[in-house]
Amino acid sequence: MSTATVSRALSRPERVSLQTRERISEAVRLTGYTLNQAARSLRQRTARTILVALPDIRNTFFSSILDAIEREACGRGYGVLVVNRFAGDGSVRRLHDYFLSNRADGLLLLDGSVELAQLLVLTGEPANVPLVMACETIAGAPFHSVTTDNVFAAEVATRHLIGLGHTRIGHIRGPAHNGLTLARETGFGNAMAASGLAINPQWMFAGGFEMERGLAVAEQFMALDERPSAVFAANDESAIGFLSGLRRHGVECPRDVSVVGFDDLAVAAHVWPPLTTMRQPREALGRLAAEALIDLIEGKPRNRVPLHTVLSSGLVVRGSTAPMVAAAETVVPQRRENTAAAFLL
Amino acid sequence: MSTATVSRALSRPERVSLQTRERISEAVRLTGYTLNQAARSLRQRTARTILVALPDIRNTFFSSILDAIEREACGRGYGVLVVNRFAGDGSVRRLHDYFLSNRADGLLLLDGSVELAQLLVLTGEPANVPLVMACETIAGAPFHSVTTDNVFAAEVATRHLIGLGHTRIGHIRGPAHNGLTLARETGFGNAMAASGLAINPQWMFAGGFEMERGLAVAEQFMALDERPSAVFAANDESAIGFLSGLRRHGVECPRDVSVVGFDDLAVAAHVWPPLTTMRQPREALGRLAAEALIDLIEGKPRNRVPLHTVLSSGLVVRGSTAPMVAAAETVVPQRRENTAAAFLL
Repeated sequence: MSTATVSRALSRPERVSLQTRERISEAVRLTGYTLNQAARSLRQRTARTILVALPDIRNTFFSSILDAIEREACGRGYGVLVVNRFAGDGSVRRLHDYFLSNRADGLLLLDGSVELAQLLVLTGEPANVPLVMACETIAGAPFHSVTTDNVFAAEVATRHLIGLGHTRIGHIRGPAHNGLTLARETGFGNAMAASGLAINPQWMFAGGFEMERGLAVAEQFMALDERPSAVFAANDESAIGFLSGLRRHGVECPRDVSVVGFDDLAVAAHVWPPLTTMRQPREALGRLAAEALIDLIEGKPRNRVPLHTVLSSGLVVRGSTAPMVAAAETVVPQRRENTAAAFLL
Repeated sequence: MSTATVSRALSRPERVSLQTRERISEAVRLTGYTLNQAARSLRQRTARTILVALPDIRNTFFSSILDAIEREACGRGYGVLVVNRFAGDGSVRRLHDYFLSNRADGLLLLDGSVELAQLLVLTGEPANVPLVMACETIAGAPFHSVTTDNVFAAEVATRHLIGLGHTRIGHIRGPAHNGLTLARETGFGNAMAASGLAINPQWMFAGGFEMERGLAVAEQFMALDERPSAVFAANDESAIGFLSGLRRHGVECPRDVSVVGFDDLAVAAHVWPPLTTMRQPREALGRLAAEALIDLIEGKPRNRVPLHTVLSSGLVVRGSTAPMVAAAETVVPQRRENTAAAFLL
């Protein structure tokens, strides 16, 4: 039997007669033949593996997305290589090696702080690495992307606070030089401007995406002469750290300050008070991004122009936000008593 | 120049003269030569990749360990393939393909619910897959392992409650058919027995490692006629869900019940009340496990008998546990009042 027939029987069994197939199956069984992916990869230039580069897998926002990516990839017969603590330009070099050595077929990039020119080296001739961006994009970049509408979601979060009667609203920013930070800050600003509310620069806290950063912001908050009555945090972790820090100083949420987060991590429902937040569709985001990348790798028809899939986030109202009126009811009577006491003296 | 000289200059430059090396470097630069890992893998049977199989990456306990594994592997020039939602026997087949196709050089297994015979197929002839177990082991299995002493740590957690004067102590179990569940339950039982305390079967709650399971246990807890004054939960997530569920019913921790968790997730310090828990050395665990596996892959000398590295956990005391005396002070006066009221009637 010719090599071509055996190869056909193994790769496209429908093209070979049943009898031939059975003879080959028997031979395969007897010889203990196994597929050598390294050899196949050398011939076909495919590793059946995608590379996922992400900022911090310890954050459950990213680990949930990775979970969805892995499930989609696995369902299509692809393995998932992970590059963690990927942060922008300095790390692009780390990715090159995976493609130079044919260990991955395409890249799913969950970080937008990369210089476009660096990525074009990967995606252009001769490397031609298929690339899809998820969570973040780079303005004007010719890549497919799957993101959530961060600007609009931040507007919704801020409008929720404004709708509760708050006018003195602060914002805990994400990390510096980060696309999400900018988008969420823009959405916050848009909502404030649309309601004619001024932004107090002292209430634009330099935060970050870790709980420790929220904890540090609580200290800045306590040191303020005049405090906002509500705060929109750029993610749940900083909001949770902020709440934890306030509590140490006896500041109660939502009585003294309302707090909105962003992401809806699983734990957001179980902290105290349960966190009002923007729920991001993490499962869909990971799944659609992996689907887009594997389609690209397999040359399935997609728009020739980059396709930007933008998913919506939803507001989840829990106990960490309350009407400004209710807050006033709690605070103002005390002030009245004080005034009355002063009057009596 | 011969192929052998060029190969030597690229793989072991110290064996080639400086002049030769420079000529070759120039040629490499001009021709745009890149290392083809697929070809190298075919020759050397090495993919410079490790495969990590773990139960649930969405749990930050595992994602922190994966973070440490990835850093160690990356430092030694290895990529990390992830198989998530790996759960015992049914999934071993998923792993075979990675080795049959030469996509990975070794396996780091973070799940002990696998039948030993299935793993021996991987590690025996002809596959000879290097394997290291982390977090969990299988009794009598001939593999290197890196774990924490779960039995002893569970004893320490339980003794902390006993030391606070609690005698009516319950336990929220981990998932069924899980080595960690058994180990932590054993440690709980050991500590109770050593202090001559009886275990109430009604207080051995069927839990799990997710927050939702802790939430469900809170409902069982509320339905009890007689409740324990303290609960040791098999992990932080179930403890956090339990606390959250109790709060919905107005049961206050630690006034009404003390709670100890296990893991010390980053969020444990920021829930309310901050969680007393056993801190597991996640970074060291991931790093040492990756180191052991890569040493095995590279044939570095290790003990011929399997080496079991057992790391210690430490008790972190926070606000979720309080002396039984203090709890009695809060509760008993109320009972007295009730008694007095009944008496007066």
